[in-house]
Amino acid sequence: MNQDALLSLLQQVQSGALTPQRAVAQLKLQPFEDLGYANVDHHRALRQGMPEVIYGSGKTTEQIAGILQSMADAGSKDIIVSRLAPEAAEVLGRSFVMEYHAIPKMAIVNHDTAKPQTGAIVLASGGTSDMPVCEEAALTAEVLGSKVIRLYDVGVAGLHRLLSRMDVLSKARVVIAVAGMEGALASVVGGLVSCPVIAVPTSVGYGANFRGLSSLLAMLNSCASGVAVMNIDNGFGAGLLAHRINQMEGIG
Amino acid sequence: MNQDALLSLLQQVQSGALTPQRAVAQLKLQPFEDLGYANVDHHRALRQGMPEVIYGSGKTTEQIAGILQSMADAGSKDIIVSRLAPEAAEVLGRSFVMEYHAIPKMAIVNHDTAKPQTGAIVLASGGTSDMPVCEEAALTAEVLGSKVIRLYDVGVAGLHRLLSRMDVLSKARVVIAVAGMEGALASVVGGLVSCPVIAVPTSVGYGANFRGLSSLLAMLNSCASGVAVMNIDNGFGAGLLAHRINQMEGIG
Amino acid sequence: MNQDALLSLLQQVQSGALTPQRAVAQLKLQPFEDLGYANVDHHRALRQGMPEVIYGSGKTTEQIAGILQSMADAGSKDIIVSRLAPEAAEVLGRSFVMEYHAIPKMAIVNHDTAKPQTGAIVLASGGTSDMPVCEEAALTAEVLGSKVIRLYDVGVAGLHRLLSRMDVLSKARVVIAVAGMEGALASVVGGLVSCPVIAVPTSVGYGANFRGLSSLLAMLNSCASGVAVMNIDNGFGAGLLAHRINQMEGIG
Amino acid sequence: MNQDALLSLLQQVQSGALTPQRAVAQLKLQPFEDLGYANVDHHRALRQGMPEVIYGSGKTTEQIAGILQSMADAGSKDIIVSRLAPEAAEVLGRSFVMEYHAIPKMAIVNHDTAKPQTGAIVLASGGTSDMPVCEEAALTAEVLGSKVIRLYDVGVAGLHRLLSRMDVLSKARVVIAVAGMEGALASVVGGLVSCPVIAVPTSVGYGANFRGLSSLLAMLNSCASGVAVMNIDNGFGAGLLAHRINQMEGIG
Amino acid sequence: MNQDALLSLLQQVQSGALTPQRAVAQLKLQPFEDLGYANVDHHRALRQGMPEVIYGSGKTTEQIAGILQSMADAGSKDIIVSRLAPEAAEVLGRSFVMEYHAIPKMAIVNHDTAKPQTGAIVLASGGTSDMPVCEEAALTAEVLGSKVIRLYDVGVAGLHRLLSRMDVLSKARVVIAVAGMEGALASVVGGLVSCPVIAVPTSVGYGANFRGLSSLLAMLNSCASGVAVMNIDNGFGAGLLAHRINQMEGIG
Amino acid sequence: MNQDALLSLLQQVQSGALTPQRAVAQLKLQPFEDLGYANVDHHRALRQGMPEVIYGSGKTTEQIAGILQSMADAGSKDIIVSRLAPEAAEVLGRSFVMEYHAIPKMAIVNHDTAKPQTGAIVLASGGTSDMPVCEEAALTAEVLGSKVIRLYDVGVAGLHRLLSRMDVLSKARVVIAVAGMEGALASVVGGLVSCPVIAVPTSVGYGANFRGLSSLLAMLNSCASGVAVMNIDNGFGAGLLAHRINQMEGIG
Amino acid sequence: MNQDALLSLLQQVQSGALTPQRAVAQLKLQPFEDLGYANVDHHRALRQGMPEVIYGSGKTTEQIAGILQSMADAGSKDIIVSRLAPEAAEVLGRSFVMEYHAIPKMAIVNHDTAKPQTGAIVLASGGTSDMPVCEEAALTAEVLGSKVIRLYDVGVAGLHRLLSRMDVLSKARVVIAVAGMEGALASVVGGLVSCPVIAVPTSVGYGANFRGLSSLLAMLNSCASGVAVMNIDNGFGAGLLAHRINQMEGIG
Amino acid sequence: MNQDALLSLLQQVQSGALTPQRAVAQLKLQPFEDLGYANVDHHRALRQGMPEVIYGSGKTTEQIAGILQSMADAGSKDIIVSRLAPEAAEVLGRSFVMEYHAIPKMAIVNHDTAKPQTGAIVLASGGTSDMPVCEEAALTAEVLGSKVIRLYDVGVAGLHRLLSRMDVLSKARVVIAVAGMEGALASVVGGLVSCPVIAVPTSVGYGANFRGLSSLLAMLNSCASGVAVMNIDNGFGAGLLAHRINQMEGIG
Repeated sequence: MNQDALLSLLQQVQSGALTPQRAVAQLKLQPFEDLGYANVDHHRALRQGMPEVIYGSGKTTEQIAGILQSMADAGSKDIIVSRLAPEAAEVLGRSFVMEYHAIPKMAIVNHDTAKPQTGAIVLASGGTSDMPVCEEAALTAEVLGSKVIRLYDVGVAGLHRLLSRMDVLSKARVVIAVAGMEGALASVVGGLVSCPVIAVPTSVGYGANFRGLSSLLAMLNSCASGVAVMNIDNGFGAGLLAHRINQMEGIG
Repeated sequence: MNQDALLSLLQQVQSGALTPQRAVAQLKLQPFEDLGYANVDHHRALRQGMPEVIYGSGKTTEQIAGILQSMADAGSKDIIVSRLAPEAAEVLGRSFVMEYHAIPKMAIVNHDTAKPQTGAIVLASGGTSDMPVCEEAALTAEVLGSKVIRLYDVGVAGLHRLLSRMDVLSKARVVIAVAGMEGALASVVGGLVSCPVIAVPTSVGYGANFRGLSSLLAMLNSCASGVAVMNIDNGFGAGLLAHRINQMEGIG
Repeated sequence: MNQDALLSLLQQVQSGALTPQRAVAQLKLQPFEDLGYANVDHHRALRQGMPEVIYGSGKTTEQIAGILQSMADAGSKDIIVSRLAPEAAEVLGRSFVMEYHAIPKMAIVNHDTAKPQTGAIVLASGGTSDMPVCEEAALTAEVLGSKVIRLYDVGVAGLHRLLSRMDVLSKARVVIAVAGMEGALASVVGGLVSCPVIAVPTSVGYGANFRGLSSLLAMLNSCASGVAVMNIDNGFGAGLLAHRINQMEGIG
Repeated sequence: MNQDALLSLLQQVQSGALTPQRAVAQLKLQPFEDLGYANVDHHRALRQGMPEVIYGSGKTTEQIAGILQSMADAGSKDIIVSRLAPEAAEVLGRSFVMEYHAIPKMAIVNHDTAKPQTGAIVLASGGTSDMPVCEEAALTAEVLGSKVIRLYDVGVAGLHRLLSRMDVLSKARVVIAVAGMEGALASVVGGLVSCPVIAVPTSVGYGANFRGLSSLLAMLNSCASGVAVMNIDNGFGAGLLAHRINQMEGIG
Repeated sequence: MNQDALLSLLQQVQSGALTPQRAVAQLKLQPFEDLGYANVDHHRALRQGMPEVIYGSGKTTEQIAGILQSMADAGSKDIIVSRLAPEAAEVLGRSFVMEYHAIPKMAIVNHDTAKPQTGAIVLASGGTSDMPVCEEAALTAEVLGSKVIRLYDVGVAGLHRLLSRMDVLSKARVVIAVAGMEGALASVVGGLVSCPVIAVPTSVGYGANFRGLSSLLAMLNSCASGVAVMNIDNGFGAGLLAHRINQMEGIG
Repeated sequence: MNQDALLSLLQQVQSGALTPQRAVAQLKLQPFEDLGYANVDHHRALRQGMPEVIYGSGKTTEQIAGILQSMADAGSKDIIVSRLAPEAAEVLGRSFVMEYHAIPKMAIVNHDTAKPQTGAIVLASGGTSDMPVCEEAALTAEVLGSKVIRLYDVGVAGLHRLLSRMDVLSKARVVIAVAGMEGALASVVGGLVSCPVIAVPTSVGYGANFRGLSSLLAMLNSCASGVAVMNIDNGFGAGLLAHRINQMEGIG
Repeated sequence: MNQDALLSLLQQVQSGALTPQRAVAQLKLQPFEDLGYANVDHHRALRQGMPEVIYGSGKTTEQIAGILQSMADAGSKDIIVSRLAPEAAEVLGRSFVMEYHAIPKMAIVNHDTAKPQTGAIVLASGGTSDMPVCEEAALTAEVLGSKVIRLYDVGVAGLHRLLSRMDVLSKARVVIAVAGMEGALASVVGGLVSCPVIAVPTSVGYGANFRGLSSLLAMLNSCASGVAVMNIDNGFGAGLLAHRINQMEGIG
Repeated sequence: MNQDALLSLLQQVQSGALTPQRAVAQLKLQPFEDLGYANVDHHRALRQGMPEVIYGSGKTTEQIAGILQSMADAGSKDIIVSRLAPEAAEVLGRSFVMEYHAIPKMAIVNHDTAKPQTGAIVLASGGTSDMPVCEEAALTAEVLGSKVIRLYDVGVAGLHRLLSRMDVLSKARVVIAVAGMEGALASVVGGLVSCPVIAVPTSVGYGANFRGLSSLLAMLNSCASGVAVMNIDNGFGAGLLAHRINQMEGIG
């Protein structure tokens, strides 16, 4: 509730249109719906420019269906369900207008495919095995309205593959660099471009990779300036943040 | 060397203005100066929009002086020396036009104070002890040309301190959230704003803080979308990235 | 064996009612029953105000049945079996009067449903995925005789959901704050209330969550005073401790 | 700002005693004073039953003095400054009415020594080397108004030392168990008493103690029910929480 | 090959009974049999007082059978196969005279049940869930010829269960203390007895147990003197070492 | 693209045989084929002396088949697919000329069995359970053209097994030392030979092995000089590096 | 208090020689002296065969002096003060009959030099830098009455140094193996002898040694049977345990 | 002692030139000198191609002097003392012919400066702060007789600096890649060359660098084949191993 809304409410109290008691009640009235197991936030689209995203892992299919129904009833579009098991997707697909992407295990409900995709997010990935995280990032940004150019399998062990795409990289407004193992891609990309770089470590690797720790630490310690890091395998977060940066308006 | 430069060089070869042999040499000609112990990169300002930054830790005063001289000779302005010990600062201050900020241990050489500061970066910090990291971030962004609004000591244990500044937060183009201990500030801020949030964990704390690990992990796991994380205590990187996002041009 | 019992025993020796040899034997007589694989502690209800709890994980169904039988024979009520697999629950349900809660995988044997629930424990949880831990805590406290008010899905990324329930929070005698990921809920709650707060980190999350490490460290480093922390996913311990605090008598 | 205050404010608006505009301003008026580097929270005594505590580590003597002055001006009593270096204490002692405890490096400013100490907190410690943490806990609880009984050097390697004090332990309303090394004291105490136990791991030890990690993990994994854990060396937090539990009123 | 054997061999060379070439060959002749995938050590019984033990994990059933056959052919008795899956045990049981213990997943081939069991090893365990590790230790020591007294479920949360068995503990020549979770049993036992104590941490627990790390660190940091620690879940090693200590001869 | 190729290209531009525009295009023409999900690098054999290796883990069977087809079409021989599941191997075996090694889960496609094996790599392994890693290393080196002598099960707990093979060890040009658990083999071997030693820690072990961490750290800390370490379980990398060292030409 | 003492006490009660009230008092009478900051345990010599050891680290010189005085007054001999800073040693040396060993920073007060040293403990050490830990172990065992043979600098990188001392090793009743870095010495020694081996990891090393973690983990994972491990740098504990094993009486 | 020496010794026994007893003695005669605190290994030059290196850290100046004297007396040349404090160097410089390199804290005693330097080791370093480790590596290899070409400050954040030196890199027989922070240099170099690459992580960095852990893990997980890793900051080991590889003779 912002200052204007508060002022308006208080003016209603002053004018007698609202009793103090009801005003208190209204101040408490929250822009979310309590399902018991979840508080669905219908105003997030206003507050943060996007509908609530449902993190599918650890929720029952029934809980997800309940949240989706609540959001659909409120007219939400482009609802993302991340980390959704194929079995749950199949069940939910019967009740909702939903497209399911198997590689990133991600569903989009009530997808507004007419929304234009603008700007330029370049997604560079270390290897084929990083695809699930990459696609989670790319689809998220695309659903939100950003244009995404994918550069797959341009890891640093074969540097010419990345350098040959400098033309694409140099036109990016934001770069998402996704890599497992030693995570060096973020530093190399960070040294080649002047736009913001979002680094996403993946859990791809084995042994002293320790489920993504090696690439996470490497990316946090990047000697290239201007690189910020997401949680291991957090493609969704990277896609969302890249979209926000991509869609920034000019200062004035 | 971008595509245009390459095309131009090849056209000179075609026209006979350049022999193939000299073209090869020129292709190798690098925009840096080799000091033996360092390769000073004079074209970084062009390539990445800012001069090279000197990471002072682990370098001798003589090495820093040598790099500074090389950059000054090339006409660089607003050269940042981070993590510079006060003793070294005193020595260098005799030879260079330099301002030294004691709290973040950071020097600015040949500061162009006439440069305008535009846009709006809000820097929110958990507690007074986080100041060195905050100032490193804020000064970096200011030197680069961004306007920075500081909100100090607005940690989540006294939430009203942060909520009372919603007016400031809501006008930010980017927020830098700096916090040690449990690093919860990033999540709380991330849930309140719709602009990009850069989280900087600090090593402030003790015991199970493990020199910043607790806040680092907390920020990486933020349940608020759109939060990206820097290395522990990396104020400089946050300031630079925030500046880049703040100065983004609009798409169209 | 407390001082009074010891004095009484020695007086019986003095009076000749007991020979020294039998007194030695009695001093050794323990208030537990040795099943070979387990020492069932029948006096715990007296000593600690509650029957022994059976930690189901790592025990065979036969062992659990044996312990339950021993306790049931001794007249115990409200016996909690935590971390009980559904398969084992089904088998045990045939021999014992038992209710099984599938979400927290917890059984209550010989539930005394007539016991009144008093006081006020507020259980606040970060997200829907934390439900198993929450229910383990809530049911434990309820079985022991405390009243529990559940606030589900009030995580800090949508702060208004929590703030809208300040009325409930402010009436709590104890708060249990359950959260995974960055565990910030404990700090935020800790700053809003003046009663004791028990923080329970959960293993909900992925990547740099490292199976609950991120929320554990965050909660241990809470900048809010008066927050104490349980083991990751230890809903039972939180419920028990909250009950003890809730049921404290006044000093005078 | 609680519900009553809000209602009262709105009634003033209704009655015309307050214009909506001023009400908005007042709603924003925060109960803290902004010193630039710190937001001193003068209403914490009301909101949480105690004045703000100053965490001395990482603050300059000047900053601490500024905060103290602001609090003293507001009439605060019993202000605790924790982790205060002896040198800083000496300087501050010249300007404030302050007692300094060298072992826990803790100062109390404007100590209200007339405040009665009630209830019964028992503080049990593993060894002599844990004294700084113990005294931080004990003094905190005493300053807040609780009675503290100290049982020093009752570690589990000599169990009879602890068992001989069962009379004291059994009368506790809360126990604080402080131990380094293997931290077993918490479990042993937790099995002997039925009141809440607050465990404080200390960094006392060497080698595989890893600065308190061994005792922290041991305490978190306590097989005794009803034990909650503080951060390593967090005597202050334990003292505060113990005081809150100790001072609980009866249910009614 | 000890000094006597070497001297004897050289004397044969000197006497002409052996050519230098054959002596070289013989010096190389190793007391093991090379199966390609394994070097079976037939002299270990001589060198270390026990036959080679087969660590079953990570070996195929065929490889285990091959090693067993080689040892059986050499007349070995009391061959221990540890960490042997039930399926493999069933297959091997058809070809060898073998008893299989399901709880510790351990087989004994060609068990010499007539061997007397002497001395006194007391095995104390924290809880029922530790049984697999306990039985691995106890059976190992028994097979080797030591008498083992088991005290199950005497964890420190119910100290009276352990204290009531002081008579047994005080007669031990060695104690094996097995515990998961916080591993406090080792310290408590270590403080009660004067004989050597071998501590075995188990991976029983969850959350901040980190698969046995908590009990391992606790045991390594035991404040009780004279406690040495085995790897997590290493019942076999504890049983063997306890046997060696138990069977020590007097100095003389 | 090396200097000679660049010179030649520029000479074509000078001579008019190539327009500058086509030269730019050609400079970008990369020696790899873009399959969308992978960039197959057909020139690696030239650049690094071996074809690209396919890391099978995390790729779908279809993706592996696509990459194999692309390489086979380009005439590649001796293509290694590491970490290939038996099920995928079976499918791929229908379409490609492929031998599959079940223990190291490794396939060789279009194996040129006529290639001679030269030099001398000695592979020493701690135990039978390390075989998968050993065979991955040995087969890799053999496919590349090196001769490999295997010394299995020569761990340091039975030192005579290793010492009896000093003749073999002393003739090695390179030694690969593979061991899990405490990884001591690398140090012992490193002290016995004067050639380069490549140490490969394996994840064989349990408890405080922490999935290979113990052997990794031990090998990195080897007190024997001249030992370098690969990632845990990285047999392939060890085989490749050993091959490169083995095949070194003499200086003069 | 053992069973015999208890029986005797009860018989005095029966005979009227002791009132029940005094018996209770006596049962509580503890064999320690409470100094406020320490409970000095005068009966430990009886209970565990040695006087209490004073862990010097973290205690003030005054506290150590107080404990020493209490023990000296009780007639204790051979009191060990471990981890005693040279400055404190100098002060204490003025008041007590004390010898101070600078390398292991260990003092012996009221040393009974006439006590014979029997049995055979062999102490093998990896390198010269491990001397402080070695001497702490050796001196402890010698003070307690064991004979110690030192084998310094016999690390596994030069195996012949260790093998040349097989004669000494083979006569040991117990071996203490002390090593930093990769800690391989424990495994090698463990494979060569049939007596108990006590492994002591040291913090000697750098980098991935992580202050002793590498040798600790290596020793815990020793593939040699019968090796038990002490805390990092815990020479005292090793010396004590070795002494206990060395002094074992024969079974019969 | 190799097979030839053994055969020769036994032939002397057969011929009567040696009694069996003396042969035993001789077999035991070790090529080292026992200084009590150190076993100086005079035959290492023969056995491993280089004199023993003295690791200066953790040894007293007297101990180092003793070892040096023993080696000098045996005629050793080019003795390396690593990690030697400047103060100790100054003292030792008075007694030995020694050159001291202050940056890598390394001394060379009896340096044979006439020894030719052959082959080609290229040392590439990430930044100026890595110089101490680089110089330790370079000097070691040079002292041993290898030619070293230094490429300083060619980190991946400014890739053109490295690519401009491809001519040098491509002529290397071995590359040593030294880098702190994210350690990406090893992967980039590994993808550019076909010779062996030795990666040395350094502890340069801060925060989530965790004293070199980030670069260590990154290098271990290098996606470039043929990269082996040394301990953090282990320049000496890298220099030695690089020398061994550089000096390899051709196969036939």
